[in-house]
Amino acid sequence: MSTRTADEAKQRHREILETAARLICARGYEATSIQDIADACGLTKAGLYHHIESKEHLLLEIMNYGMDVFEEQVLSQVESIADPVERLRACMEKNILLVTRGWSKEVTIILHEHATLQGRARNQIDARKKKYVRFLEKTITEATKAGKARAVNPTVAAFAFLGMVLWIYKWYRKDGAIADTAIARGMVDLFLHGLVPVEAR
Amino acid sequence: MSTRTADEAKQRHREILETAARLICARGYEATSIQDIADACGLTKAGLYHHIESKEHLLLEIMNYGMDVFEEQVLSQVESIADPVERLRACMEKNILLVTRGWSKEVTIILHEHATLQGRARNQIDARKKKYVRFLEKTITEATKAGKARAVNPTVAAFAFLGMVLWIYKWYRKDGAIADTAIARGMVDLFLHGLVPVEAR
Repeated sequence: MSTRTADEAKQRHREILETAARLICARGYEATSIQDIADACGLTKAGLYHHIESKEHLLLEIMNYGMDVFEEQVLSQVESIADPVERLRACMEKNILLVTRGWSKEVTIILHEHATLQGRARNQIDARKKKYVRFLEKTITEATKAGKARAVNPTVAAFAFLGMVLWIYKWYRKDGAIADTAIARGMVDLFLHGLVPVEAR
Repeated sequence: MSTRTADEAKQRHREILETAARLICARGYEATSIQDIADACGLTKAGLYHHIESKEHLLLEIMNYGMDVFEEQVLSQVESIADPVERLRACMEKNILLVTRGWSKEVTIILHEHATLQGRARNQIDARKKKYVRFLEKTITEATKAGKARAVNPTVAAFAFLGMVLWIYKWYRKDGAIADTAIARGMVDLFLHGLVPVEAR
C-alpha cells in the first residue's frame, strides 16, 4: 500500500468511527444496528464488515480512536516540557482545544459516558485513561517538590484539572459567546492562580 | 393524609425513582420496561402505575427529584450567605457531598448524561440547571466587584466550579483512598487559591 492510499484508508476508517459514534449517541448502542451504520456510511453491510469486526469491537475502536488522537495531540506533545507547571499549562490548553475541535462531541460522549464495554475491552480503555491521571498526579507532585506548586493532594488536583477540561463538552457551543481559546486561557488561569486575589488572602 | 403517612408516601416514591434510575442506567432507557421497574420495586404493573404516569414521565421525575434534592440541600442552604466567597465555598462543599452521599450515582448519571427527554420536559430540566449556572456567575461577579475575586470570566469560572464538582461522580469510590470531606476541602482550596504558591507568581 502506498503512503497516500494508507492515509486515505486511515481517513476512511476515522469517518466510519465518527459516523458510528453519532448514530450510537443519537439512538443508543442497543438500538443501533450494523445495518444502520452501514447505511449512514453509504456502504453495504458486507462493505462495512470489510472495515470492522463486530458492533462491540466498533465501540472499542471508537474509544481507542479517541485515546489515540488524545495521546498524539496532547500527551505526546507535552511530556517532554521540562518545567512541570508549563507542562500542566500546555496540557490543559491542548486538551481543551481537543475537546472543542479535535473530533465530534459524540466521540467524547462515548469515551466518557458509555459503560457498555465489558471485560478486557473495558480494562484496556480504563488503563489508557488511568495513564493520563498518573501523568497529571506525577507532574503535580514534581511541581510541588520544585516549590512551584502548593502541597495539594495530587489526586484531587488531577481530577480538578480533568473535571474543568472534560465538563466543557457538556456546555461549550461553537457559536457561543466565548471562544474556545478564551476558555482554555481562563481555565488554565483559574487552575494555576485560583479565584481569590493574592492581596485578599 | 397524616404527616406520617405523607412522609412514608414521599419516601416510597423516592425509592421507586432510585430503583428506576438504577435499572435505566444498567440496561438503557429503551431496553427498560415498566414491567422491569415494577418487578424491581416489588409491585405489580398496576401498582406501579398508581405511583407514576408513564416511562417518559418517570425519567422526568427522576431528574426533577435530583434537582429538588439539590435545591433543598445545596442552593437554599447557601443563598443567604452574605459574603460571596463564603457562599461559593459552602456551595461547593455541599454540592460535592451531595454527589458523593445524597443519592445514588445513577441519579447523577440520569441528571447529567441522559438526553432522552424531549420538548417541554427537557426545557424544564435545562432551565433548572441554568438557574444554578446563573447563581454561580452572579456570585462570582459580586465577589469580583467587592475586590474578593480576580476579574475572571464569570461563565468560565462557573463551569470550572461545576466541572470540578460534577466530574467527581465519575471517579469517586466510597471505599477509595480519599474521604469525600477531604475531596471537598481540596477542591474548594484549589478553586479559591489555585495550584501555584503566591511566592512563585
